Amino acid sequence: MSGTWFTLRWNDGAVEMLDQRRLPREEVYLTLRDVESVAQAIETMVVRGAPAIGCAAALGVAVAAARSDAAELGALRRDVHAAIDRLAKTRPTAVNLFWGLGRMRDELERAAAAPGADVASVRTLLVARASAIVAEDVDVCRAIGRAGLAVIPDDARILTHCNAGALATAGYGTALGVVRAAFEAGRVRRVLADETRPFLQGARLTAWELQKDAIPVTVIADAMAGHLMKHGEVDVVVVGADRIAANGDTANKIGTYTVAVLAQRHGIPFYVAAPLSTVDLATPDGDAIPIEERGRAELARVGETEILPDGVPVRHPAFDVTPHELIAGIITERGVARAPYAESLRAQVEAAKAAR
Amino acid sequence: MSGTWFTLRWNDGAVEMLDQRRLPREEVYLTLRDVESVAQAIETMVVRGAPAIGCAAALGVAVAAARSDAAELGALRRDVHAAIDRLAKTRPTAVNLFWGLGRMRDELERAAAAPGADVASVRTLLVARASAIVAEDVDVCRAIGRAGLAVIPDDARILTHCNAGALATAGYGTALGVVRAAFEAGRVRRVLADETRPFLQGARLTAWELQKDAIPVTVIADAMAGHLMKHGEVDVVVVGADRIAANGDTANKIGTYTVAVLAQRHGIPFYVAAPLSTVDLATPDGDAIPIEERGRAELARVGETEILPDGVPVRHPAFDVTPHELIAGIITERGVARAPYAESLRAQVEAAKAAR
Repeated sequence: MSGTWFTLRWNDGAVEMLDQRRLPREEVYLTLRDVESVAQAIETMVVRGAPAIGCAAALGVAVAAARSDAAELGALRRDVHAAIDRLAKTRPTAVNLFWGLGRMRDELERAAAAPGADVASVRTLLVARASAIVAEDVDVCRAIGRAGLAVIPDDARILTHCNAGALATAGYGTALGVVRAAFEAGRVRRVLADETRPFLQGARLTAWELQKDAIPVTVIADAMAGHLMKHGEVDVVVVGADRIAANGDTANKIGTYTVAVLAQRHGIPFYVAAPLSTVDLATPDGDAIPIEERGRAELARVGETEILPDGVPVRHPAFDVTPHELIAGIITERGVARAPYAESLRAQVEAAKAAR
Repeated sequence: MSGTWFTLRWNDGAVEMLDQRRLPREEVYLTLRDVESVAQAIETMVVRGAPAIGCAAALGVAVAAARSDAAELGALRRDVHAAIDRLAKTRPTAVNLFWGLGRMRDELERAAAAPGADVASVRTLLVARASAIVAEDVDVCRAIGRAGLAVIPDDARILTHCNAGALATAGYGTALGVVRAAFEAGRVRRVLADETRPFLQGARLTAWELQKDAIPVTVIADAMAGHLMKHGEVDVVVVGADRIAANGDTANKIGTYTVAVLAQRHGIPFYVAAPLSTVDLATPDGDAIPIEERGRAELARVGETEILPDGVPVRHPAFDVTPHELIAGIITERGVARAPYAESLRAQVEAAKAAR
């Protein structure tokens, strides 16, 4: 990345976020000064992508702490817990949201229980923790990118779905972290980006951020992936994840399952790239992952253009689940986990805990 | 159909067409008075759908004959042949285009060779032939609908891709002809319409015409079909065709192949509905079907909204090929052809020729 733009950050007592709804036409940053603004930014897709949502939630808790007018510790704790409860209601599928909130809750309890704790010290520690979560996310993405190099062939044509990029994280990206690392190693011929209806994350966001970094990208309609795979134009698929169950079943943006089915038919390896914070060992398999159904508007209109006749209903499941048997490997900051995932993912999570 | 609208027709020496680019927001009819206008209407998707393109091409030849200022038969023949050559260049994939033009060329030669033939008689016969092709297309669609009843279960949830409806034919539709017949028989619970990016024929056209006929329709993004199939929400798939090769391989709107692969994975029967004019015995298999690549604009913008960053390239194959082994049956006006298609399709084509 050139460093001329960022996804989200803590700055001067507030949360700053690039408004992803206005990309690629406008690069506008919002300054969010209270938890409700951060919660609504998550709900309305100002920020999206599982790791970025986790970071945004942590920053939302920090802003609640920083802005609380509590005069004593009990009141501050009530304010922070209320913020955590509000943020937990924003999006159901991405487990990183709950992971980020869990880390902030742990920090709150630790800070509040420390000898000599007061309102000021707890505020300071919560802000520091949120900033650390954001910085750590970039480091984790770079590690995912390095690990992913093992699965990207020379002169690769890489297909991705949705945006699992710098815009979906605090920076560098997960699936696009693998793409960036492979590009830096001289191995990428071209990235094929599914446009990813209805919210068009591929057309608007993946195309935008890869173009910013001069990585060659071609956009296709989602329905074109099968045709191009059949004609030998895809070497490997790498996508992100919103939640990975203990057995490796992976929830990601709607349409990912279709890409995985197509990849299997054509013998193309299908990889998931995600931080271990996306792995939810408490969710046994894909059937236990809640799938968010979003409203009609994102499907019925594009920009100012209504594409549907008035009154025609839609369905809008925002995510689907790819069963583990379609996944060639799960690339995390600790390497490429392979089947059986119930063992390899648990081992990685435990190793990460031990290293902390 | 209520009879309050039509796709295309001959009227008072000109061709009238519903401008499908402006649906569903506006219902505007164009009056085309020369062959170049008809050719451009086909190229720019005022009219689309294989059978409708065949009818439009025939009407285009008729308007060339009707408007020719030729004073003698040789000049008229030259004008009509020039019209046929121009119209043959409009779209490469739909074989019905060439079928419609071939029938008009045959009529031209027959009419010109008749005893006492003159400019006036040839004009009259060409206009009559084009009108007959249009009328016959509706009859054929109704026969397809009746034949398709055999494969639609009670209380069916039918998925379709693109628009193979009244709007893609002279009326009633092919895939939607099957839907209409099944609806009239009380068997349709709901139609699921893929929106069909990039041109959005499902969202704009299938939703519009089914709503007009009070047939319950729900629109989904193309990438949602896999998720809904996995969750048992689709009983049968019926799509149209732009060209069917001798072995049953079928070209249809981009994304159809993906639907077929998904249907196979989930054990859902996948049917093609098309008139025999779509069957091209001269094309041995799908590899021999030319696939039109259309321009960037249809993918890069929706209405007035540019969705892509400037300068990012796209791919836009407008069609794909579904191999015959994924097709449960091909529904034509002569019944449901089953594998091996090389035999069943040839038998239907020959029976139709013998009956003519």
